[in-house]
Amino acid sequence: MTTRWLSPEEQRAWRAYIAASRLLEDAIDRQLQQEGGMPHLFYTVLANLSEAPDRRLRMTDLAETLKITRSRLTYAVTRLERDGLVRREDCRRDKRSSLAVLTDEGMAVLERTAPGHVEAVRASVFDRLTPEQVGQLEEICTGIARGLLGDAEESGAGDVPWRRRSPCSP
Amino acid sequence: MTTRWLSPEEQRAWRAYIAASRLLEDAIDRQLQQEGGMPHLFYTVLANLSEAPDRRLRMTDLAETLKITRSRLTYAVTRLERDGLVRREDCRRDKRSSLAVLTDEGMAVLERTAPGHVEAVRASVFDRLTPEQVGQLEEICTGIARGLLGDAEESGAGDVPWRRRSPCSP
Repeated sequence: MTTRWLSPEEQRAWRAYIAASRLLEDAIDRQLQQEGGMPHLFYTVLANLSEAPDRRLRMTDLAETLKITRSRLTYAVTRLERDGLVRREDCRRDKRSSLAVLTDEGMAVLERTAPGHVEAVRASVFDRLTPEQVGQLEEICTGIARGLLGDAEESGAGDVPWRRRSPCSP
Repeated sequence: MTTRWLSPEEQRAWRAYIAASRLLEDAIDRQLQQEGGMPHLFYTVLANLSEAPDRRLRMTDLAETLKITRSRLTYAVTRLERDGLVRREDCRRDKRSSLAVLTDEGMAVLERTAPGHVEAVRASVFDRLTPEQVGQLEEICTGIARGLLGDAEESGAGDVPWRRRSPCSP
């Protein structure tokens, strides 16, 4: 099969995406490390739990929401549990799965950290974009995510990160 | 200062971006691990060296091109060196800095891995986007990257990842 190399426009867009996503990850992580003592992934664990009924979610559902592998989530939750921000409970309805629960201290840390984080997201992303670009970014990212999830379904459900047994990437 | 929370549109765009970027990182990393035995970051090290004059770059310049910290680059280059894909040399003009050089074996691995990687990028990203969206993605990402680099310059040059001494994020 002949390789369909990227066109110059696609090449430029791909390189711009890689540069922006690495700089953004770095900026968001750094702000959260400095002000909340945690990386962005940990913050999103707390934020997702805070929005769930009774501030608790099954680990499998949390991994799916976060689009990460279960082993990466387990690592994050173990660290958050050690700091008293999250607690783990057995699931009554499904004995094989466990729940992650946001503690009061976790909620307090989230509330204290959220304003600075939102300010960083706004300064890094939304202050740079027009309202049209905000809509474009959503549409582009939704299309990419939907495509990748669709591919995973077609090739067998095991291909999405949260259903995979052993992760390839750290 | 009152927190300027994200609007519903911004919230949706931000969540879509996080989901897409995590799924994309996972898909691209997985394809490269399976076919090239390396994560995406290592591949971009080889690709950047292959385009440089004499296939060599100063470590500082390479870190800047890749938008990562020097310690993260050092880790990647050490691993690539161990596999014989990259070689390190002292820089003749600047004794404090060192060069990373792509070996013939590194070039061969890159050439063997590139078609599958490009196919994965195309299938994950560009097959999902219209030509207009490719332009929009480039403009959005260039704006975000430029903003973050500008902020770093204003607040002192040490704030960009490649000039920082100790990284916050792994």
